[in-house]
Amino acid sequence: MKDALRKLQTDIGHDFSDHAILETALTHSSHANESANPSEHNERLEFLGDAVLELCVSEELFSRFPQAPEGALTLLRSKLVSEPALAELARKCDLDRCIRLGKGEESQGGRQRDSLLSDALEAIFAAVFLDGGFEAARRSIRKIFSGMWPESLVEPKSKDYKSRLQELTQKRYKARPVYSLADSRGPEHEKLFEVRLILPDGHEVTASGSSVKKAEQMAAKKALGDIRDTLDP
Amino acid sequence: MKDALRKLQTDIGHDFSDHAILETALTHSSHANESANPSEHNERLEFLGDAVLELCVSEELFSRFPQAPEGALTLLRSKLVSEPALAELARKCDLDRCIRLGKGEESQGGRQRDSLLSDALEAIFAAVFLDGGFEAARRSIRKIFSGMWPESLVEPKSKDYKSRLQELTQKRYKARPVYSLADSRGPEHEKLFEVRLILPDGHEVTASGSSVKKAEQMAAKKALGDIRDTLDP
Repeated sequence: MKDALRKLQTDIGHDFSDHAILETALTHSSHANESANPSEHNERLEFLGDAVLELCVSEELFSRFPQAPEGALTLLRSKLVSEPALAELARKCDLDRCIRLGKGEESQGGRQRDSLLSDALEAIFAAVFLDGGFEAARRSIRKIFSGMWPESLVEPKSKDYKSRLQELTQKRYKARPVYSLADSRGPEHEKLFEVRLILPDGHEVTASGSSVKKAEQMAAKKALGDIRDTLDP
Repeated sequence: MKDALRKLQTDIGHDFSDHAILETALTHSSHANESANPSEHNERLEFLGDAVLELCVSEELFSRFPQAPEGALTLLRSKLVSEPALAELARKCDLDRCIRLGKGEESQGGRQRDSLLSDALEAIFAAVFLDGGFEAARRSIRKIFSGMWPESLVEPKSKDYKSRLQELTQKRYKARPVYSLADSRGPEHEKLFEVRLILPDGHEVTASGSSVKKAEQMAAKKALGDIRDTLDP
């Protein structure tokens, strides 16, 4: 256990001043629940660590891919911080050996559960953040994720809003959205085109752009947003 | 516009060294799309700023409510960073006056749309973070949110897992979950109780704790997790 704790601190590149906080990060709620004097467990740290991780990963992707649109960055981030990915990183640091588990949870194989490991790794990031500040947490996360950053950007499907909207309306209404040019105005060199888009259910959206193509894309994007709003109120 | 920009920088407590980044944060995609030479718009910054905000708000709640369970913190955070709450803060800083919008978006009232304002405020937080570092962003966010932090904790319903599970099974199966003591072991002063919980559909879960009550709560929590997994695969 002592060896594993040493390896963990080497792997994350941070030596804790406050060992109590490291211990809390490594304590699963099942352990705390089983002891007569419940000690602190790592759920609060996981809440904070999730946000520490999200910012550090976002910042790294933002600077690595200066041309990437928001949607592509979001997609990359969600892969990097997914439960299986984090659990894998946790195992590499021998975090599974360090966690304090309740006996019940232990006997049910909790020590190797992805969700438990990924939560504990997030708690560790919060512990580093509280112990050493944002810079320390950033260093730690970069160290753990080194070699994991994607080399290149796979353009997400989401870029082409028109295609996505058409797929959706075909599926839902067995019909396509209809685009029409509603207006064009302004002098020749900075003409503005306004496009009207009508969904098969009659819902109307308008948008403008410096070309008809751009205006259509914007209109499709809006329509997708409206449809999403009706799905997740 | 110049006055509004000045007020904005005073309100967020940050004077930008790099004015280009502030301009990007204030540029909506509709503006970029309408110009013949598309300038940068704020969607990438919004991606980063969302994470900056999430961490700063999480950290503040974490330290303000040292006894609050994770669920309560998550609930408080989601209220503070909700779209209407952020839009309100954006209006207080006159952000609506500073945003560069496309003509189409403008004519459709986009300048007062909550989603547009809240996205722009997040982009501003990213701009402060990139211009002045994490400390500057934290200061800014604390300044903007001063007076908004909740005074006390409203315990979320989620704390009592047994009650929540019972509500759910009543609704879904018109029946209650059944708890039974499966095992108790260990010496008297640190006895461990294992509880079995059977859902009306036959699904079984076991959990342990230092009292039957704690073990039942843990079992109910697990069962709720399992049910959630079947709902959101």
